[in-house]
Amino acid sequence: MSWLEAEFDVIVVGGGHAGTEAAVAAARLGARVALVTSALETIGQMSCNPAIGGVAKGTVVREVDALGGIMGRATDRATLQFRMLNRSKGPAVWAPRAQCDRGLYRRAVRTLLERHANLLTIQGTVARLIMDDGRAAGVETLEGRRFGARAVVITTGTFLRGRIHIGTTTQIGGGRAGEAPTTHLAEQLEAAGLTVARFKTGTPPRIDGRSVDFTRVEKQESELGAFAYRWSHFEDPGLEPLTQLPCFITHLEDAGKEIIATHIGESAMYGGAIASRGPRYCPSVEDKIVKFPEAARHQLFLEPEGLETTEMYVNGLSTSLPAEVQLRTLRTVRGLEQVRMTRAGYAIEYDYYPPTQLGLTFQVRAVPGLYFAGQINGTTGYEEAAGQGVLAGLNAGLAALGRGEPLVLGRETSYLGVLADDIVTRGVDEPYRLFTSRSEFRLTVRQDNALRRLAPVAERLGLYDAPERAAVARRMEREDALTETARRTTIRPEQAAALVERSGTAPLSHALKVAELVRRPGIGLAELLAAAGAPIDEGGEALVTAELELKYAGYYVRERRAAEKLQRMGGFALAAELPYETMRSLTIEARQKLSAQRPMTLAQAARIPGVTPADLQNLVIEVERWRRASGPRGLVGQQG
Amino acid sequence: MSWLEAEFDVIVVGGGHAGTEAAVAAARLGARVALVTSALETIGQMSCNPAIGGVAKGTVVREVDALGGIMGRATDRATLQFRMLNRSKGPAVWAPRAQCDRGLYRRAVRTLLERHANLLTIQGTVARLIMDDGRAAGVETLEGRRFGARAVVITTGTFLRGRIHIGTTTQIGGGRAGEAPTTHLAEQLEAAGLTVARFKTGTPPRIDGRSVDFTRVEKQESELGAFAYRWSHFEDPGLEPLTQLPCFITHLEDAGKEIIATHIGESAMYGGAIASRGPRYCPSVEDKIVKFPEAARHQLFLEPEGLETTEMYVNGLSTSLPAEVQLRTLRTVRGLEQVRMTRAGYAIEYDYYPPTQLGLTFQVRAVPGLYFAGQINGTTGYEEAAGQGVLAGLNAGLAALGRGEPLVLGRETSYLGVLADDIVTRGVDEPYRLFTSRSEFRLTVRQDNALRRLAPVAERLGLYDAPERAAVARRMEREDALTETARRTTIRPEQAAALVERSGTAPLSHALKVAELVRRPGIGLAELLAAAGAPIDEGGEALVTAELELKYAGYYVRERRAAEKLQRMGGFALAAELPYETMRSLTIEARQKLSAQRPMTLAQAARIPGVTPADLQNLVIEVERWRRASGPRGLVGQQG
Repeated sequence: MSWLEAEFDVIVVGGGHAGTEAAVAAARLGARVALVTSALETIGQMSCNPAIGGVAKGTVVREVDALGGIMGRATDRATLQFRMLNRSKGPAVWAPRAQCDRGLYRRAVRTLLERHANLLTIQGTVARLIMDDGRAAGVETLEGRRFGARAVVITTGTFLRGRIHIGTTTQIGGGRAGEAPTTHLAEQLEAAGLTVARFKTGTPPRIDGRSVDFTRVEKQESELGAFAYRWSHFEDPGLEPLTQLPCFITHLEDAGKEIIATHIGESAMYGGAIASRGPRYCPSVEDKIVKFPEAARHQLFLEPEGLETTEMYVNGLSTSLPAEVQLRTLRTVRGLEQVRMTRAGYAIEYDYYPPTQLGLTFQVRAVPGLYFAGQINGTTGYEEAAGQGVLAGLNAGLAALGRGEPLVLGRETSYLGVLADDIVTRGVDEPYRLFTSRSEFRLTVRQDNALRRLAPVAERLGLYDAPERAAVARRMEREDALTETARRTTIRPEQAAALVERSGTAPLSHALKVAELVRRPGIGLAELLAAAGAPIDEGGEALVTAELELKYAGYYVRERRAAEKLQRMGGFALAAELPYETMRSLTIEARQKLSAQRPMTLAQAARIPGVTPADLQNLVIEVERWRRASGPRGLVGQQG
Repeated sequence: MSWLEAEFDVIVVGGGHAGTEAAVAAARLGARVALVTSALETIGQMSCNPAIGGVAKGTVVREVDALGGIMGRATDRATLQFRMLNRSKGPAVWAPRAQCDRGLYRRAVRTLLERHANLLTIQGTVARLIMDDGRAAGVETLEGRRFGARAVVITTGTFLRGRIHIGTTTQIGGGRAGEAPTTHLAEQLEAAGLTVARFKTGTPPRIDGRSVDFTRVEKQESELGAFAYRWSHFEDPGLEPLTQLPCFITHLEDAGKEIIATHIGESAMYGGAIASRGPRYCPSVEDKIVKFPEAARHQLFLEPEGLETTEMYVNGLSTSLPAEVQLRTLRTVRGLEQVRMTRAGYAIEYDYYPPTQLGLTFQVRAVPGLYFAGQINGTTGYEEAAGQGVLAGLNAGLAALGRGEPLVLGRETSYLGVLADDIVTRGVDEPYRLFTSRSEFRLTVRQDNALRRLAPVAERLGLYDAPERAAVARRMEREDALTETARRTTIRPEQAAALVERSGTAPLSHALKVAELVRRPGIGLAELLAAAGAPIDEGGEALVTAELELKYAGYYVRERRAAEKLQRMGGFALAAELPYETMRSLTIEARQKLSAQRPMTLAQAARIPGVTPADLQNLVIEVERWRRASGPRGLVGQQG
């Protein structure tokens, strides 16, 4: 083999959300890591919306953080607006979401990477893998630099044969607007016999905030003050929050819908320029108009891009219509009558490798030493990419260092476990993203308890430094102390009376432990302890977790049992004539896919991408209800 | 003409140093301006070294600022290290220079652009000019957006058919590492009959600061504290300086030189991959080794890239050798024995349009309404680009608004006037940069008095807002008050005795005005006024300027006379056998070019690019000395 400039344990190709997490994860294991990317300036670039978190995704950020990742820390340093989604539904389903300053997010990621002395960032465009006896053994860059490695993690996002579409006639090569696509590596991977497919995704136009009439749109302020939320479990006491900026809400209404409908044939997607599939849950506005023609209007969020710029992101208006049509559509929107468009929206088509070619470690089965993470696996979303980055980086690092067992997280531990299991065992037929409904364990797998769930894994792998171990220990001790106090403290009926009455539950007939009474809905742990004469002197997230763990202690067992039951019920028959469309307890995606594919058994249904474990549970109930309504038939032999 | 999304007075293509200044200049005139660039994130990107200013260049930054430009303001917001070059030689030749945080510089530029309500930034790659009856009338982007304009300023830097070279075998299309080049526009400009040529430039490798042994290199601290310097004349009182970082000095010595010499044939430049010329005064290290083989060592500066990153820029080591050779060379350098290279250096070849095709307004003579500024004109340097941007933007704006006379600055007013006159009337045969020697007026055209020289121009054009006008007035009043006090105040011999003695000049025989005595070398205005019993209560730059204006009052007249004399002496004969190589008072560049071209008259010599007015003055003296030494001959008729 010719000269190698340097040898690493792990080389990560790509500097987006997957790549940066993979590099840090491997570095935390003690591996010598290189992250190779086409432009160091764009490390940590948020290519699409300037926001992190949301339902399920927010939990992933905290899981990544619990495993030592950087996404939460970077978000803490770049948050312009914070919202706790599902705030009114209570902390069990809280979902944090942050608008970020794109530039500060990039800066933070770069700083966080460079904290690891054994992690080198290199600017270069990887042209090909160096192979050694069928194994991935390094990379060679277009600039003529050659680096050896025991494992290579590829996280090239939409850059592999990326092609940007605006309207049906305009196509530009590029992995992101203004940046060059990567073709050499794509050719080598295809030549290696890997199956490749194409997905598309899109972005909305961006606008000049100075041209918005803010008196005509609804303002949504940051809730950071209400929560003093930190994304990272490893608090930096010196970190001051940035100036908070509001988002704004407006709507696409009839006039805009009509323009889109009139020009739908000129959309890259609907005009036939792109045949590949796009993300169902981040649909283009063309999709929304076509699929939900009855919707009176579609919500649009105007999101700030940063503190240093007046540019705003029009969330909800992803489109590949011609630029002229985009602008005309924008100007039908309330508040945007005089708007100026700084960037046109576009669709981008790119290579992905169906993830059923991977093991649960994210290693490509056909090429030892080669790992894939992020959009290259057919997923969508920054958080999904980051989560895969952590898992691929850890497994690449463990393998490279010859450190025993690979890391595979169970579905019951985390959304990361669900994601890995879903895409590797069931594959994807559209860009995959996480939802709470994809998890069987969504009451026990929450954003607040990521550390409780994953710190043991991180500790076992040695991912934390001493201050981090101490921070984790403090948090765990605090939760344990609260739980223990609740278990130890007895509350008498007269002490609890007011709280019990307020909750609308039955009065107590005798004294109870606080840990028992707190399971009742509408009664909080802090107020119960106070009523019982054992007030606590500190709130914070440890209190949230302790309370929820006590409340949902029973659910964990039930969630596990339900999941096991589903597995046993694989042979549960599904009649061909089942009216899936009417099964309101299933997700729309599940209804559509079951209608189209009409599986014969529950096991077959379970293998359909997009049909979630929760859907399966609900399907059994729906089928039994349908059977009762339409008489006994169709049971083809239920397997044990 | 088909649909135009919007109509502007001026469209600027490109968001680098020329483009951003052109856009702001036109906006300050009141024009409706659009700046169109391939990636809004890279607006204000420093593509090469992370520094602004230096000899002559620092003065240009202040001239740009005096005309309302943004370079000085952005530098004030991004300075990591400040040095006053020529500090020991006194304020008449002071040259400010600042290392900048690249990311903060970009952020600052974006913010400063967006302060102008009539300036819109648009992300798009300009594919072609829209022409109307032979005039530039707008632009069309690859994304399919069409914008009309009365004037178009093209500032595409190295992006027109940019091609990156590393070694003789590696070539990558790109306007900058990781970014796509622009070919469509280049084709159209060529088709329009413009003469196009190729230049090259280069960058050095960058390194991981964590791999430098700082105990083995020399530290150079910031001098910001010694000056409290502000680049901009329009002070922002709330602006706190950033944490200052040192630079470091080390040297390329024999071991490194040997490696380069051995591999010189593998350099893109010396191996023949690139035939075009590079910048003489920012030479590649290959150039240095070849041209100055006797030099014992070459100084290298390790410059910080930013507060958020440990990456450093190796100033002095621009190279297009293969990456492997670059790394081996780096590791021969003291302190870099274990260095890790984050980016390889590279050369880039790009289109430029010989600037003799322009008028002094920077309008392309063959295409009304079309202006060029920056590297596209064959210049090099951020400051040179910015300065052209201001002039092209102002002229484009004046023309678009139908506002009378164009703006042409005289050589006596500014380095900007020298630059425009040099490149437009004499052309370039290598990337053009400014030096003090290019100006006939370098004692009166200084960095401290840019406002005095150019504020009248800015006021006449209406470039300032009210607070800026007030800031200018305060500064002018302060200077005037100091000058007036010096003129009014008499100093008696006994009051001046100590200062006069310290200066080593003759004792006073009678009382003098301070304004007269201050012309003596080594005597300062503040100390003279204090000795005369008229102490001033405030220092600052106004004092520097007032003192220098008093000291050099006589020089202005002399500088003008010398320049006029040179013009009259156009027919001064230059014998074919003149020993230019031995004329030590000429610059090396002038010696080489005169030797090669052997002009017959001073007028011919004056038209050779790189032969400066100062060279011409010195040449007359040298020739007269040579004539005296070798007897009378060769006078072919001196013209009036």
